[in-house]
Amino acid sequence: MTTVTEATFTAFDHQCMARALRLAERGAYTTRPNPMVGCVIASDGEVIGEGWHQRAGEAHAEVLALQAAGDRARGATAYVTLEPCAHTGRTGPCADALVAAGVARVVAAMRDPFPQVDGAGFDRLRAAGIEASSGLMETQARHLNRGYLSRQERGRPWLRVKLATSLDGRTAMANGDSKWISGEASRLDVQHWRARAGAILTGAGTVLADDPSLTVRLGDGTPFEPPLRVVLDPGLATVARGRVREGDAPTLYVHTADAKPPRQIDAQRVVAPAQGSNFDLLAVLQLLAARGINEVQVEAGATLAGAFIAAGLADEILLYVAPVLLGDRARPLFGGLGIDTMAQRTQLEIVDARTIGEDQRLLLRPLAGR
Amino acid sequence: MTTVTEATFTAFDHQCMARALRLAERGAYTTRPNPMVGCVIASDGEVIGEGWHQRAGEAHAEVLALQAAGDRARGATAYVTLEPCAHTGRTGPCADALVAAGVARVVAAMRDPFPQVDGAGFDRLRAAGIEASSGLMETQARHLNRGYLSRQERGRPWLRVKLATSLDGRTAMANGDSKWISGEASRLDVQHWRARAGAILTGAGTVLADDPSLTVRLGDGTPFEPPLRVVLDPGLATVARGRVREGDAPTLYVHTADAKPPRQIDAQRVVAPAQGSNFDLLAVLQLLAARGINEVQVEAGATLAGAFIAAGLADEILLYVAPVLLGDRARPLFGGLGIDTMAQRTQLEIVDARTIGEDQRLLLRPLAGR
Repeated sequence: MTTVTEATFTAFDHQCMARALRLAERGAYTTRPNPMVGCVIASDGEVIGEGWHQRAGEAHAEVLALQAAGDRARGATAYVTLEPCAHTGRTGPCADALVAAGVARVVAAMRDPFPQVDGAGFDRLRAAGIEASSGLMETQARHLNRGYLSRQERGRPWLRVKLATSLDGRTAMANGDSKWISGEASRLDVQHWRARAGAILTGAGTVLADDPSLTVRLGDGTPFEPPLRVVLDPGLATVARGRVREGDAPTLYVHTADAKPPRQIDAQRVVAPAQGSNFDLLAVLQLLAARGINEVQVEAGATLAGAFIAAGLADEILLYVAPVLLGDRARPLFGGLGIDTMAQRTQLEIVDARTIGEDQRLLLRPLAGR
Repeated sequence: MTTVTEATFTAFDHQCMARALRLAERGAYTTRPNPMVGCVIASDGEVIGEGWHQRAGEAHAEVLALQAAGDRARGATAYVTLEPCAHTGRTGPCADALVAAGVARVVAAMRDPFPQVDGAGFDRLRAAGIEASSGLMETQARHLNRGYLSRQERGRPWLRVKLATSLDGRTAMANGDSKWISGEASRLDVQHWRARAGAILTGAGTVLADDPSLTVRLGDGTPFEPPLRVVLDPGLATVARGRVREGDAPTLYVHTADAKPPRQIDAQRVVAPAQGSNFDLLAVLQLLAARGINEVQVEAGATLAGAFIAAGLADEILLYVAPVLLGDRARPLFGGLGIDTMAQRTQLEIVDARTIGEDQRLLLRPLAGR
């Protein structure tokens, strides 16, 4: 085991790490299943190299930053948003590259829980006489890679439930009409959240009622890795058709062992444990983690969204609140929360609140307990 | 009729008027039924006098600012948030005071629609050779005095519906429990909105269920004029008791002509037209305007709040959104909106959105049509 230097950090250290975090974020739509990583190399108070990981299998952030810094990296400080890797994957170990370049100091935002790293990167640096410290802006770094960290640490993806609601907590009219509650700016904003998810998950009911395509449409040429579209469809009732099977993105049907697949199904499918037609939602998430999914965005109806929340599996709720009233005959935001008394309420906290076009966007997290 | 100089305003003019508006706002809790007014007197790019109207019957903003400026007011510019008065009420006409002080120029944010002014203030200034212009920051000035302007121009108070809701649009559990959906900071914030209202209006149902006191509790010694508490109680069923009759604020019961008042009632009461037990809400508001009420804050249940909205009488909705889910068995935010299709939805716009403690506060206005 490694012991990391207890360190205090200067304002310039913070500045460089903040920059490295911004660089890392540029990989949000493309690094999956890898984490986002940014690196800044600085010497004598001057940034001399920058890099970020762009795509799994391609160069890591540290290597790109070292290339940019060239010979000036000797004796410099490298700021990385995640512990440098110590293993040979599709690319060589970054710790070795930092040693070879002769940097004097490495500051990481956090340790990488990936089993083949998990302190071994720091060990290798220190063995080479490099001063290695960790923990600078760790909260921000953890927030950035909450998907990757969830998969590594909990064996399941980070789960985001996305919903659009009226002010009075309604998602659609009694007849099902829901076009459009939220405004154009919100609908574009959602695309960016989709783009950073490894999977967009919905239920058979939504496929039948709304026939969504669940593809990413950024509209501006920004590169992204198309997220897997996941349909929870116990009996494979919707597998034959729907826009969720069209477009340039893979689709995975999750069904029960009892389902009888149509003879000529050409879609990916997988069996998940269920009680009757109610899936074991944790098992579904574990199955997606095993496929390298870091973040799942649920875009489903009140029942499935409510089921993830009731099961304590929703890590964050992305809620677009449109300034409209739909009345008490319209459909509720969540079903099946099973709340009868104030003590049973689901308590959350607002992580971020902002105006998106004419709507209000809230990012919320359930508080421990309920 | 007066014709007001078409004027362009400098950055310094804007700066002085912005200051005058801030000064005016200091009277928000005390000037009723008078409008809030602020005045800044400036000469050679320097502010030489400030004043604001504090209480009906006491000195007007212009007079206080002139006192502060003294002899330096001669040849100066006076910035006022509302046209100077031309009539003798409980104090003398401000237009005359400005003339007497020898100011060279008067810039107003807006004309005063009060019948005894309504351009006559500008006329009197211009007759004395003073350059008078209007319209600088008029939008802000109208927003500040929206209550007073509503009473003058529409014959009814500005109506604000205040509600606290969960994220899923619920105000209470099915059993009625609603303590506390919103947080402590929100509950204190509400007190400031109460303090600027001329009346807090509720229904008999809320009195019976929650027994609210509806008094202002700012907790910091800020002076305020206690708002009138208004209970819509068709049959005077609640008149005998309740915290709404206690405390240092007047209470008015609005009832139907059929109601049989208890023999020894010592409360103020007034008859309003109704169909059965459903009041003509516009008539109720007109009756309050006739009593000098500029702003009404409705703090009632889903049915009465919904009735004001459905009748098109809600000018703004003050909504505290608490980050909590209460589930679809809890009580809805509004009742009786009578919405069945998307086309019938009530469309609003967000005027202001901010974080208050752990909650989100939205100030909304219905858009024209519905």
